[in-house]
Formats: sequence, C-alpha cells, structure tokens
Amino acid sequence: MKSDIQIAQEAKMKPIMEMARSLSIDEDDVELYGKYKAKISLKVFEKFRNKQDGKLILVTSINPTPAGEGKSTVTVGLGQALNKIGKKAIIALREPSLGPVFGVKGGAAGGGYSQVVPMEDINLHFTGDMHAITSAHNLLSAAIDNHIHQGNALRIDLRRILWKRVMDMNDRALRNIIVGLGGKINGFPREDGFMITVASEIMAILCLSKDLMDLKERIGRIVVAYDLDGNPVYCRDLKVQGAMAMLLKDAIKPNLVQTLENIPAIVHGGPFANIAHGCNSILATKLGLKLGDYLVTEAGFGADLGAEKFMDIKCRYGELKPDCVVIVATVRALKHHGGTPKDRLSEENLEALSKGFENLEKQVENIRSFGVPAVVAINRFITDTDNEVKLIEDRCRKIGVEVSLCEVWEKGGEGGVDLAEKVANIIETQPSNFKVLYNLNLTIKEKIHKIVTSIYGGEGVLYTKAAEGQIKELEKFGLDKLPICMAKTQYSLSDDPTLLGRPSGFKVTVREVKIANGAGFIVVLTGDIMTMPGLPRIPAAEKMDIDENGMITGLF
Amino acid sequence: MKSDIQIAQEAKMKPIMEMARSLSIDEDDVELYGKYKAKISLKVFEKFRNKQDGKLILVTSINPTPAGEGKSTVTVGLGQALNKIGKKAIIALREPSLGPVFGVKGGAAGGGYSQVVPMEDINLHFTGDMHAITSAHNLLSAAIDNHIHQGNALRIDLRRILWKRVMDMNDRALRNIIVGLGGKINGFPREDGFMITVASEIMAILCLSKDLMDLKERIGRIVVAYDLDGNPVYCRDLKVQGAMAMLLKDAIKPNLVQTLENIPAIVHGGPFANIAHGCNSILATKLGLKLGDYLVTEAGFGADLGAEKFMDIKCRYGELKPDCVVIVATVRALKHHGGTPKDRLSEENLEALSKGFENLEKQVENIRSFGVPAVVAINRFITDTDNEVKLIEDRCRKIGVEVSLCEVWEKGGEGGVDLAEKVANIIETQPSNFKVLYNLNLTIKEKIHKIVTSIYGGEGVLYTKAAEGQIKELEKFGLDKLPICMAKTQYSLSDDPTLLGRPSGFKVTVREVKIANGAGFIVVLTGDIMTMPGLPRIPAAEKMDIDENGMITGLF
Repeated sequence: MKSDIQIAQEAKMKPIMEMARSLSIDEDDVELYGKYKAKISLKVFEKFRNKQDGKLILVTSINPTPAGEGKSTVTVGLGQALNKIGKKAIIALREPSLGPVFGVKGGAAGGGYSQVVPMEDINLHFTGDMHAITSAHNLLSAAIDNHIHQGNALRIDLRRILWKRVMDMNDRALRNIIVGLGGKINGFPREDGFMITVASEIMAILCLSKDLMDLKERIGRIVVAYDLDGNPVYCRDLKVQGAMAMLLKDAIKPNLVQTLENIPAIVHGGPFANIAHGCNSILATKLGLKLGDYLVTEAGFGADLGAEKFMDIKCRYGELKPDCVVIVATVRALKHHGGTPKDRLSEENLEALSKGFENLEKQVENIRSFGVPAVVAINRFITDTDNEVKLIEDRCRKIGVEVSLCEVWEKGGEGGVDLAEKVANIIETQPSNFKVLYNLNLTIKEKIHKIVTSIYGGEGVLYTKAAEGQIKELEKFGLDKLPICMAKTQYSLSDDPTLLGRPSGFKVTVREVKIANGAGFIVVLTGDIMTMPGLPRIPAAEKMDIDENGMITGLF
Repeated sequence: MKSDIQIAQEAKMKPIMEMARSLSIDEDDVELYGKYKAKISLKVFEKFRNKQDGKLILVTSINPTPAGEGKSTVTVGLGQALNKIGKKAIIALREPSLGPVFGVKGGAAGGGYSQVVPMEDINLHFTGDMHAITSAHNLLSAAIDNHIHQGNALRIDLRRILWKRVMDMNDRALRNIIVGLGGKINGFPREDGFMITVASEIMAILCLSKDLMDLKERIGRIVVAYDLDGNPVYCRDLKVQGAMAMLLKDAIKPNLVQTLENIPAIVHGGPFANIAHGCNSILATKLGLKLGDYLVTEAGFGADLGAEKFMDIKCRYGELKPDCVVIVATVRALKHHGGTPKDRLSEENLEALSKGFENLEKQVENIRSFGVPAVVAINRFITDTDNEVKLIEDRCRKIGVEVSLCEVWEKGGEGGVDLAEKVANIIETQPSNFKVLYNLNLTIKEKIHKIVTSIYGGEGVLYTKAAEGQIKELEKFGLDKLPICMAKTQYSLSDDPTLLGRPSGFKVTVREVKIANGAGFIVVLTGDIMTMPGLPRIPAAEKMDIDENGMITGLF
C-alpha cells in the first residue's frame, strides 16, 4: 500500500491559476506562491458581493480515540464526492503547524486519496502565515520588555505579564524560561515561556477577523499584562498594533490549493482546539461560500469541543449558518469508547460497539441542539464486520439520523458518493434552524454551566479558588460579555480523559479562566493544557531527508 | 522631498515573470511569490552552463561613519547606470533582516531613486528565507535539548553548548536566558540565549553553499557543542541535517526582484558582517554572472572588513574573480574621519577632508593588494563645496585611482553614468589579477597576522588567554585550516572605534576565537559583538501602520 506522501507526490496538480480562473477569480486577485499555491486577495469579496452564499457543511466527530477517526480525510473526501455527484463544492481546512511535523506524526492534510496538495509545502512553510503570526506575536513580546527596560511608564507588573513568546517548534526547553539576564543592558529578569505558534492569540484573531481593520482593532484590544494597580494593560497601550497588522497583511489572505482530484481547497488559519477555538478562518469559510455552492469544513477535536466552538464562537462572529453537520466515527473508535482495549479493536465486539455508540448518539443530540441536521459518516476499515456495520445502521435509524459508510481514504471522492448524496438531500429537504447555545449577556458562570450541562451532559461545574478570582476580575473590568472557549480533554465528554462513551453524573472542574480579549473569547481551562509540545525519543525529523533533486522523504 | 517609501510606492514595476523572460529564464524555472517577487530554480544553472560569466563588480566603502556613505544606493545606482550606457547589468544585494526594521532604522533596499522594489515586501517577510533559516536553526536547538532530555547518549556538556537559538527580532530580553525550568518534564535547566537570525551560522552556510547537497553537508558539519570529554559534537550526530536542509529547500533559491528602473536585482541571503562574512549568497552572485554581462554586488561594512571577507571567504569558496571594486565615500564621511564633529560636517573643511582622505587611500591600497582595480565613487551631498570636490579629485589622481561623482540617490541611473563609464572602461582596459590574501594552510595566528598587518595597517596581534586556548583547541581537532572571519568594529581600521582616518602603530587584541565549521570559517572576535540588538526608547514600530487598502506608512 502506498504511503500518504507517495500518493501525494504522484498527484497530477493543475496550475493554481487555472483553478482560480475556474472559480471566476480575477487574475489580479490571485497572488501566486509557486505554481500550486496562491493567496486570494480580500478584494475578491467585492466582486462576489451579490452572489448568494453556498451551503455550509461542518465535519466533526465523536470524541477522538487512539484508534483514529479520519475527520480531515472525510472533509476532503466529502468535498471531492460532492463534485462527483455534480455539485460545486469547495473545501476549507486548517493549516498545519510546523512544530509537530518534526515530532511524532509528520504532516497532515487529509490522507490516502483524500488529501490536499502540494502536501510537502502545506506542511512546511506553506505561504508563510505561521511565520508572519510568529513575527507579529514576538514583536509585541519585544515591545513589552522594551517598554519596561525604557522606564516602564505603564507600570507593567513584571509578575503579571500574560503575553508569552511563541515559536513554531516542539521545544520543551522553552516552556519555562527566565529572560532578561546578564545585567542592566539586557532589561529586567523575569519568568517567561514560549508557546507553539498555533497557541498564539494572534492566530485566533486572524481566524476570527472579518478584514484587516478588524484584525488591527482586535490586536489592539489584547490584554498583555496587568499593571501594578491591577488594571489591564492593552496591546494598543504599547502602540504596536499597526506594525503587527502590517506584518499580517498577507497572512490574512486565504490560501488556495487543491485536492488530489483537483477540487479547490482553501487552507487558512489553524488555532489550537483547546485554548483557542480550533477552526480555520472566517475569511476562508466565507470565501468558500462565495466561490462554491457547498463549502465543507472541519473543526478540531470532537463535536463537544470543536462543533460547539464552531457554532458559539466562529459562527457567532462570522454570522455564519451551518446547514448540515457530518459526524465522523469508526467502528474501531466506537468499540474503544465501549471499553475494548487497543489491541483487540480488530475483533468483532457488538457489546462494546453498542455501548460506545452512546458517545456518537450524544454528539448527534448536541448537533441537533443547535438546530442543525446531522449525518453520521462511518469511515470504513477492513476489519469492520457486517454485524458491526448493521448494528450501527440500526442504532442510527432508531435515533432518526442518516448514516453513510465512507471509503474516501482508499477511493477518494468515489468512496464518499453515498455520503455526498445524503448530505445534499438533507440540505435540500431539512432546513437548518441554527441558533447559538447561549446569550453573551449571561454571566461567565451561566455560560459555562450551559455548555457543561447541555453539551457535555454533566451535572454541574466546580470552580477552584483561583478561577473564582479570575472570573471576578474579568467582571470587574467588563471583560465578561464574550463567548466561552472551553479547554477540556478531547477524549471524553467530561473533563476526565478516562471516562469514555457517554458518562453521566460528573461535574466539571474549572481550574483557570483567561481572557483572550483580542480574539474575543474567555478561555476556561479544566486541566493543564500543554501549549508547547516536546519532541519524542526519536523525533520524526531524524528520518527526514531531501535529495539533490529536491525530493523529500520521511515527511510522513 | 519625497521619502524612500513614497518613491518606492510610486514605482512602475514590471511583472516579475516578464523580467525573468527578458533574462531568458524558462517560465518553469520561475516560482512566483506574488506578482513582483520570484524564486529562481537552481536548475537554471544547467541551461546556462556554457554561457561565459559576466564581469563581477564589488561595491564597498571607507570605514562607515554616522554621516552615512550610501553603499547599497550606489550598488543599485551603478547597476541602473550600466544599463543606461547600454550594458546588460544585474544587481545582487543582501536581504534585509526583519528585526532592525522595528528598531531605529526602518527598512533598507537602497535609497531615493536607486532602490529595489517592492520594498515593503523585501523588508517584511519577502519570500520567507529568514523564516526558513530561523526554523532550521531552532530545529537543531530543539534537537540538542531533546537529545539531552532523552538520555544524552552523546554526553553533551551542558556548560559547553555553542548552538544558541535565533529569532528575527530585536529583543534584548532574549540575549541571556535560562531554559528548561519547571521540573523533569521540561528538560535540564541551562544557560542559553537568542541571537538575531542573520547571525545564525545557517545563514552563513546558505550564502556559501554551491547547491542543496553542499548545504546539507555543511549543516551536518556544524559544531554544536563539546561533550564531557571535550570532543566536538557535530550536527550530524543529532541526525537532523536532512530535515534542516528540507526546511531550506526554497530558501536556497535566489530571489528575483527589480530596481525602480526595472533592472533585475537578485536579493538573496544576508549574513552578519561581523561574526559572519556579510555578503549575499554565492548562488545569487553566480546566477547574476550567468544572466548579465555585469554583476554589481556589495559587502557589509567598509573595505577592511567587507571586501576582505568578500575576497578571502566568498570568492575563495565560490571560485569567483572580482573584476573591479568601487569604493564609496562621501565628503562628509571623509571629514568625519578627519576629525570634524558631527554638527559641523556641513561646513567646508579642507584640512579635515585631507586628513580623512587617508582612510580612503588605505582602502584603495587594500583593494589593490588583492590584484583588483579600484574606482572611487563620491556620493554627492548638497553641502559639498567645489573646493572639497577638487581636493578629492586631486588626491585620487595622485594615487592613480579614478574618481566619479554620483547622484544616484536623486537621479537614479542617470546620476551614475560617469561612474558606470569609468567602471566599464577599467574592466575593458585593466585586467584583474585577483588573488586571495593568505593560504589556508597557514596557522590561525599567521592568517590573522596577515590580515591585521596587510589590511588594517596594524603592527601586530595580541591574544587573550582565552583566545590562545581556543586556537589550540581548534588546532587539536583539525578545525584550523579554514579562512578567518574577523569580527572587528566597522568604524576604524583598528579594533578601536575611536581611531578614525588611517591609524598606525596599533595592535589588535583577539579576545575570542570561535569555529563556524559548517559555514567554513573561523570567527575571530576583537571585542564584544552584539548578536541580538535591542529596541530603542521609541521603536520605529510605533509609527508603522497599515490602512484598509493595505497601504503601509512609517516603514521608512
């Protein structure tokens, strides 16, 4: 069997300018980055102002398991399949982060015959968006320490600087550092740390901005620190929001690439799915809705985290209305949720499957609670038995949700034709009555309670003393009327990663509450979230190489 | 008078593909980055294999002064002027670093009507080369700390890690840091620091490599640390040279842009001029020599540092032969060398000018010592008096060197026609007998002695005890048969920045000797070299802005 990179390297790509032309984008609005990547100018929106938006399809999943679900692969496969059945569909994905590529997993842009290409470029520097975000972020960091060094007119409290530095690298040694050592000319020593770039609030801002001016405004609103009186210090107090926006002038433009079947794919923005909202950019999604009749996109982690934030943060800010949600699962993953140990997932186990199905069932309910119709997509594996497939079909019928078996990894769009037909049919016959889960005027605690009880199925919320204090502080400064961005384990509906399936009777403990005022959400942490990964014992980087013809090996 | 950025923004640029076509580059060998920037595939060298190289012209200067000389401006202006007189000339410049843009000076790509454009892009992320270098560099850093964390099989001595981290930002707080804090999961605490990206050995390697495989080889040879037995640990011991080369697969390709007069300019690579050799890439220079009949390029700082390293490092590795060297000076700068205080440079002062001329005279001698003919270019200022100009002309005649008055800032190529004619004439009539200054088989001390006595005009060299030890160590490991890269103040021929003009009777003190084994030179430090700049009290970043149309202000 061919590897993802082998399949990708054999792709017959069309020149990206040709792809753009087929989407009626003017040549002037296309900025090429090599032959197969382009940035699309935001001016293109003017041209399509009067065109009606296409239909918005979100691909999400059950709570992820080590068995793997293949959400990105289904996203790409469904986009390809919709085109197979004669629909003009576009795909919108997140851009991968460079750091993890050198760690365990290599790159990611779908898989098998449902990938976006050129995959090496997408996984390496792509069009430079990550680097631009890194630069803009670290300019603000440098401005903070420089401000302090030059006299600290704003009276920034060195013990309460919220703004860390970032690097797009898995580098655990940078998690906790002391900066400013070496005497007077090097500034004031203080504790600091690096996060990986995708964890930067700048990334979240880029993904939630409606244009360059909105981006600049949002950057100005970032709370970077507290002063010695305990009042927030904003980015705009340091006067670098203009320079930062300037650094992001190209990064804000969506990137156009293609799938293996030459379907247009917009790959733009990739915020963390825990401390941020985990969706690609609003601009990319909106662009896709203008360019296609259907736009297929995804959100990080399972539906309890990814889809909820997609609805309550991204759709709210972007004034988007999802028309249909596809929930991806695999037989193996459902068995894992039903308690099957990892080494026995290949054996038929109807009991475990039936129990694990409850996780899927809850995610279907969750999607329906937003007023949006759901479809289940089962990503097929060779080990799935007929009995297992039948069980899932029966159970889906029982809860009145359409289910489709996909083989998009092996067969590309052809393997998703049934899914595409079901999705298209639902969009035609079942109108979406989309509504967000909560009103922004609720208190922080009310909003959290709503998410925990309605979406996670929990009984309530506990708060640490620290979190209580942080909530009071945000209320005091009027920073509380924002959507909530939950940072919770992705492996469980609860905040305990070992509670699989559909747990009940649990309470979620909120340990920390942080403001992301530029992005426009309140991050609610229910556990330790690692914002800077490390490299494993044998990093993937050691197997990577490039030869004299530029041929890359070991990237996947 | 218009500012540089105003002039640049009014430029009538040609599509870069058109420029490439006019140079007979196949469309397939051009990778566009937007409409006005492109990378040129290294495959282009095959096509031009049998074409004779053009003539190589180096632009250098007297020892720089606060009065400014305008070396890059003359480089661009001369390239434009050569085209004005019917010669097919190409320009090759260094790429600017992003960090300093936000500090004092804003960007840099020539000035006035002798600039390369699109200057905003060139000064911001350009084609991503700096970011790629940053990534490759920091991947090695992460690999070192990860190796130690995972058991330290190589027995790396935590106290003797030579490889710092880099960031393309002016950020003094990162100069001296402690990493790896926070307990076992974050690795071992140790002292570390960040340099600005242009100070990375990866940058020097990129600029000295003849192709991608040479680049990978050189990266593998980097000495990253010493082990507990005192033996060098190489990058290849960590097995990441393949991944690092992969990250640089596009960065190694020269970037094509244009001047305000639509003359092709290759802007590629920009190593520090002190701890590195300060010239653009060998590949860019070689490409320019293939594409044009004349290639005009520059080197950092004055001729004592920049030109010497150009000859002894770049030309040696690149097997290049300079045909003519232009030495740039201004009346104001020469008066500064003659002792005129900064606030009185606008007044006529023939005595100071005459004394200051000695600096120029020595630089002319230096160039001639390499067997290459020299021309003096005086960058004209409105305050220069006729008497002053006459004095320079007389003195130049006396030492038998051609002199030309330039107005390339105000007039573009037209302002450099006389210089262009003189340069072209010299190339036609005075063959270059280029030879390097020293043989690599000399000892480190012999090589340093040669540079100090022949080029700087010093009497000898003193060594600190530390430097003596470092030299012995390099000799022990056979790392001594490399060219010398002097890191000395650029303001004086000596190692004392206050000794202007043509000092004599001085000795140079070598404080530290470092190996850059991948780049292939030995860095000899004669003072503290700041490898991470800081921001000033009011950073230039505070004045920068971008409006809703993407128009940038305050960048210059």
